[in-house]
Amino acid sequence: MILTVTLNTALDLTYRVPALTPHGSHRVTQVLERPGGKGVNVARVLGALGHDTVVTGFAGGPNGAVMRNLLSRSPVRDALVPIAGNTRRTLAVVDDATGDTTQLNEPGPAVTPEEWSAFLARYGELLPAADAVALCGSLPPGIHVGAYAELVRMARGAEVPVLLDTSGEPLRRGIAARPDIVKPNADELAQLTGAREPQRAARDARRRGAHTVVASLGPDGMLAVTPSGLWQATPPAAVKGNPTGAGDSAVAGLLSALVDRLPWPDRLTRAVALSAATVLSPVAGEFDGKTYDSLLKQVAVEDLAPAA
Amino acid sequence: MILTVTLNTALDLTYRVPALTPHGSHRVTQVLERPGGKGVNVARVLGALGHDTVVTGFAGGPNGAVMRNLLSRSPVRDALVPIAGNTRRTLAVVDDATGDTTQLNEPGPAVTPEEWSAFLARYGELLPAADAVALCGSLPPGIHVGAYAELVRMARGAEVPVLLDTSGEPLRRGIAARPDIVKPNADELAQLTGAREPQRAARDARRRGAHTVVASLGPDGMLAVTPSGLWQATPPAAVKGNPTGAGDSAVAGLLSALVDRLPWPDRLTRAVALSAATVLSPVAGEFDGKTYDSLLKQVAVEDLAPAA
Repeated sequence: MILTVTLNTALDLTYRVPALTPHGSHRVTQVLERPGGKGVNVARVLGALGHDTVVTGFAGGPNGAVMRNLLSRSPVRDALVPIAGNTRRTLAVVDDATGDTTQLNEPGPAVTPEEWSAFLARYGELLPAADAVALCGSLPPGIHVGAYAELVRMARGAEVPVLLDTSGEPLRRGIAARPDIVKPNADELAQLTGAREPQRAARDARRRGAHTVVASLGPDGMLAVTPSGLWQATPPAAVKGNPTGAGDSAVAGLLSALVDRLPWPDRLTRAVALSAATVLSPVAGEFDGKTYDSLLKQVAVEDLAPAA
Repeated sequence: MILTVTLNTALDLTYRVPALTPHGSHRVTQVLERPGGKGVNVARVLGALGHDTVVTGFAGGPNGAVMRNLLSRSPVRDALVPIAGNTRRTLAVVDDATGDTTQLNEPGPAVTPEEWSAFLARYGELLPAADAVALCGSLPPGIHVGAYAELVRMARGAEVPVLLDTSGEPLRRGIAARPDIVKPNADELAQLTGAREPQRAARDARRRGAHTVVASLGPDGMLAVTPSGLWQATPPAAVKGNPTGAGDSAVAGLLSALVDRLPWPDRLTRAVALSAATVLSPVAGEFDGKTYDSLLKQVAVEDLAPAA
């Protein structure tokens, strides 16, 4: 089983409008609702790949109930912890005239100390059955900034490989607890280390505690710096589309290949192909299986540190 | 008891953002939820004025449940009819930099013939206890375009004064069923009659079947054309603010004064003062009681057809 943790889950709404005009009035032509938050997105991709996947984190209020109801129709198993607050909504307004998206994200509900304790107990119960765990996204109000460090230490104590995908101070604190993998993008990596050059920044992040650093470089693919090597995987040219969810699909690819015990070049191939298939999908955050299969053959992996 | 009918109710959301940038990503700083739809807004104002008020119409799904929960905290009584569909949301995005509002309205859920029959039964049960009834807003999908005409005829059959506030073809059909009052704005009146000059258009609307026509003229106040006279009421100069809900407050003022058996000049005064107090309120659709009391003394009513 693969476990994903989303402390700041969301009910994701998508509105289509003919054209977005600030200060105008719009008839929404289509409304889509789906369960959201980074770890939930990762889990949905893992479920679509056929992996037994469990999501935990927090859900509450009417929005949480709608989110859990939608989740119950997917192959992902729900181990979310109830809270008194109302789960946040995120809204993507898609402008049909330009294809561009305007994003509006509600603040997350505050989590109480008792709810955090209930989550730690649930997480501790789930870890022994997990082949891997991913800790994903921002922290909601009320959760201490060292929360991910605490969750990394618990996973390591249970000998479960742990991937951390967050940013800012929670990433800085979490990385010091020595996670197996961190997956920052170029901006997050630069913010953490002060270095803009990805290889240099990734090596710096390893020195801060991460066993392996996988940096997502947008259209340039992904770079992995591991204890034993250095690889960069690049997608075929001309992957144009909606990048929403591409990073979450990459995390799903890394976890999927990890539990399948593939070597690093193959893990990167899977992550880059899933990420590109998500960008190419007409529905934000989804991917097409045939496109993914075709892309798997087109990703190029370069060994940047060949044996001396 | 005053009855208001809202066939296309809504869960109204308001998001505050520091500045709305199309195709950007925004953190919402404040989320407000309230029960919405024109007749629900009218009822909330009537409730705040101390009138015993009942709302009917349709509500369903998770959004309907949230709306009804919010309504239960107001003095308004809930006689909404459940439907299988999910009540629509409306979203007002308020830009803190400019104070302007961008409106996004979801389509309403389709209403089945069985749900319409259930509504007609409920409406028929409520009418005998009503001192007045208001039929407000657009028709949801699945409701026939002559629906308001049917509801006007039922109210007249029960000898309950009926006010119709809608637009387009539902107004055209409804007016032919001879409602006691219609309250179009200048655009709706011009669309109905083809005449842009309000007095001429209002007289035309009376010939089409309305007993009394009250036209809302924005900053110029309101014009009433009744069987016995012609009056225009104007607010004091410099009523600047958010016009959201001003028309619904005007309807509440007309109904409030009708059940209090006030003459037409006093009905217009109440409607214009409530409408202006709503424009001046910092919260969209709300009004401040003290501002309202003060405005009541400042509204000027002109008799445009003095006795010969």
